Amino acid sequence: MTKQQQTAITPTREENYPEWYQQVIKASEMAELSPVRGCMVIKPWGYGLWENIQSTLDFMFKETGVKNAYFPLFIPVSFLEKEAEHVEGFAKECAVVTHHKLEKGEDGKLVPAGRLNEPLIVRPTSETIIGDAFSRWIRSYRDLPMLINQWANVVRWEMRTRIFLRTSEFLWQEGHTVHATRKEAEERTYQMLEVYRRMAEDYLAVPVYTGAKTDAEKFPGAVITTCIEAMMQDRKALQAGTSHFLGQNFAKASDIRFQSADEKEEFGWTTSWGASTRLIGGLIMTHGDDNGVVLPPRVAPAHVVLLPILKKPAENEAIMAYTRELAARLEKVSYHGNPLRVEIDDRTIGGARNWDWIKKGIPLRVEIGPKDMAAGAVFLARRDMDRKQSRSISRDRFTEEVVDILDDIQKNLFEKARAFRDANTMDIDDGEAFTAFFTPKNPEKPEIHGGFARSHWCGDGDCEEAIKNRLNVTIRCIPFDGNEEAGACIECGKPSGKRVLFAKAY
Amino acid sequence: MTKQQQTAITPTREENYPEWYQQVIKASEMAELSPVRGCMVIKPWGYGLWENIQSTLDFMFKETGVKNAYFPLFIPVSFLEKEAEHVEGFAKECAVVTHHKLEKGEDGKLVPAGRLNEPLIVRPTSETIIGDAFSRWIRSYRDLPMLINQWANVVRWEMRTRIFLRTSEFLWQEGHTVHATRKEAEERTYQMLEVYRRMAEDYLAVPVYTGAKTDAEKFPGAVITTCIEAMMQDRKALQAGTSHFLGQNFAKASDIRFQSADEKEEFGWTTSWGASTRLIGGLIMTHGDDNGVVLPPRVAPAHVVLLPILKKPAENEAIMAYTRELAARLEKVSYHGNPLRVEIDDRTIGGARNWDWIKKGIPLRVEIGPKDMAAGAVFLARRDMDRKQSRSISRDRFTEEVVDILDDIQKNLFEKARAFRDANTMDIDDGEAFTAFFTPKNPEKPEIHGGFARSHWCGDGDCEEAIKNRLNVTIRCIPFDGNEEAGACIECGKPSGKRVLFAKAY
Repeated sequence: MTKQQQTAITPTREENYPEWYQQVIKASEMAELSPVRGCMVIKPWGYGLWENIQSTLDFMFKETGVKNAYFPLFIPVSFLEKEAEHVEGFAKECAVVTHHKLEKGEDGKLVPAGRLNEPLIVRPTSETIIGDAFSRWIRSYRDLPMLINQWANVVRWEMRTRIFLRTSEFLWQEGHTVHATRKEAEERTYQMLEVYRRMAEDYLAVPVYTGAKTDAEKFPGAVITTCIEAMMQDRKALQAGTSHFLGQNFAKASDIRFQSADEKEEFGWTTSWGASTRLIGGLIMTHGDDNGVVLPPRVAPAHVVLLPILKKPAENEAIMAYTRELAARLEKVSYHGNPLRVEIDDRTIGGARNWDWIKKGIPLRVEIGPKDMAAGAVFLARRDMDRKQSRSISRDRFTEEVVDILDDIQKNLFEKARAFRDANTMDIDDGEAFTAFFTPKNPEKPEIHGGFARSHWCGDGDCEEAIKNRLNVTIRCIPFDGNEEAGACIECGKPSGKRVLFAKAY
Repeated sequence: MTKQQQTAITPTREENYPEWYQQVIKASEMAELSPVRGCMVIKPWGYGLWENIQSTLDFMFKETGVKNAYFPLFIPVSFLEKEAEHVEGFAKECAVVTHHKLEKGEDGKLVPAGRLNEPLIVRPTSETIIGDAFSRWIRSYRDLPMLINQWANVVRWEMRTRIFLRTSEFLWQEGHTVHATRKEAEERTYQMLEVYRRMAEDYLAVPVYTGAKTDAEKFPGAVITTCIEAMMQDRKALQAGTSHFLGQNFAKASDIRFQSADEKEEFGWTTSWGASTRLIGGLIMTHGDDNGVVLPPRVAPAHVVLLPILKKPAENEAIMAYTRELAARLEKVSYHGNPLRVEIDDRTIGGARNWDWIKKGIPLRVEIGPKDMAAGAVFLARRDMDRKQSRSISRDRFTEEVVDILDDIQKNLFEKARAFRDANTMDIDDGEAFTAFFTPKNPEKPEIHGGFARSHWCGDGDCEEAIKNRLNVTIRCIPFDGNEEAGACIECGKPSGKRVLFAKAY
């Protein structure tokens, strides 16, 4: 028997991927399920990550002229009814407020009182309430384009929840824009998708495919839905951001009209686009390993943890002074325009301390013991490398090189994820091979399958539905780039001009 | 007859202060009431101000070691029942969720369906849900202090609403901390009040009194409630931030225990502290004038608007180039560590354009016409000065001096507000004078009265209540600084060792 390699997370990804995901989040202290059914608590380490995602996206939005605003949490039921497809999409899963106070009942318990004339729902998305505001704010072509974003919590009542991926309440941003022409609205749709692609690839180090959804997978009420799709380590797809061209559908439903430069009354052309705390789930499932979360430096809540080794009271003060001085130096280093974020962990809890930070996924761990101090050095471990590759480095050199080291980690994580995705993405033209690709080899591990298939599709919704019903595989997107070639639909054999991306999905 | 001075806001503050407040917000496009009863829409100009308040407070919180987290929007009714005073405080005004979907009723209209076993309330504050998390997170003294803040929306169902001051939904932050000792928790309470004082005085340019609330005015369940109190231009008080020492009351209600260094099981000592979008209302009522909002530069969404005068097509391109070049130069100027925020407004709508920005309260307006351009100059107007004081200034000098000019505006606004407050704050020792001070001279303007009275109070709740019932005047705070002297209670004449601050309040 070979000696079993010890891992910090049980089970491993190989043993049970869905359970590994729950355990890795628990071990990292990023979030937890709350006593309120379906809702999560985002703990400081997870929220710090979200703050960095938020500030990065916010900066990119504002660069394109978008401004933030805030709209009510509650939406009257009558608003939801304005757009037929929209109500179909959301009525089945929304929190409904029916009363405005609590009173003591006969048994002394608090019961709802003060019934509302019209029930309110907690926003599942704000299309309708923002549409109502736009209909009042927009009068003339001079008011366009209207470029608004909102950072908010939304609620979609979920029966089966998974932290960050599907919870009843989640945090997101929703952008809503109105334009004078179809062309400008379409361009805005793609422009914002490109923001999401940059966020995913350049910051989260998550490679994504960009493309359009099929009619069956579109946002309720949209004309075009575009998306970014990433591959998780179980080879399933995760939709990580969407941008919708809504045509004039929502403008007509919400009565968003403007007077054009030649004094005609016209309906506006609108877009909406959103990304959520789901990005955190995608990040964890892309980079995490059997020892915990692995965080890309560009979004990590902290870049470096300093771990002073405090064993002999006589030395401790000098080691702490050395540690604090290093922290002060590091905090003066600029990492992509912001100061490096440094933590000092001086707990004396043995090896558990080091493992805590491995599980949290901090990019760099720096141990500082008496010998390191005497040599003017530190002992450096990278989260993206094996622990055996940890090394001693002089304090000065570390301070000089830390930005390069972090950039190298960022690059490595992206390239590793891309290599994994590309190795598990196949061009498949044969129906039987397609079925085999998506069929689990081991019935005990039904989630393990081939990955992404780039196959031809005739464009018929019936073929799409047949594949979905048979294999639980959906068209994730019709990719924008390349793949144009003549072929035959993987389902019916009819001619097709382009490959589309098939996968099982979260 | 003297010629009537034209103002942008009708009515003026003098004519009808409450109505002026509504009109000034409308004219500034900061916010509006939404079609959802009691909720507001915060428009980009108002939200930009909130973003600046938020990032300033967030930075100050983090400097003291606080980290952000996020807790569920919904709170089970059973949680609210844990702390008796707390439930009294909030049960009368909360949004109650009773169902989790909508279905088509007999008449085709959507009706609530899927009744919940236990109703949920939308958080009016998160003490109880955060207390539940802390009871799980905290085991040992090593986990302390626990320093958590949340930025969130909260709901308190209000029957009479006023934008920014009292709405059913509002945005706020709530800090919650747990400490091993009473002393540390008390110190944290005052430390966070000091953060609010700095925010109010150094950024919002709103002078405040700091002090403690009386038992009657405390937060439900708190041992000590401290607050900052500002005077509005109608001489009423506005509470602009509170910090509570909760003793062990909430720790006992939520079972927050820890093992101390000497291995005893003890209850934690907790604090909570909050500030909200109400700060924006206070800012408007402190600095606004009869032409609109006046914004302190440190928090203004934009500092300078450039207004190119585009009258002759032949010149327009050159003027726009000159304008854009100036904008680029200004955006390179660092104003207290951040780039100057510059707007260009090139609409050709005549004088309405200038008035739009006056009403919005932007600190500096810069007109650029052909003559200015020819002279390498601009025409500069300060929002805190009369329009007659506008002047021509060379473009280079403006770029060099803009930071000093903004700092001067910031200082002027604070000093003007402090002078107003001090002129309307009186030491009153005579009961009749006290009554006269708070009695409106003109029955048609019941809101006009003397201002703040610093008077002696014996400490008896009956005296406090009698004054409240008779004059609608409350003790805003027992000030921390000074005022210690022997005197007689303004109500009953019994001995008192300190003056307290009496006022009518929002």
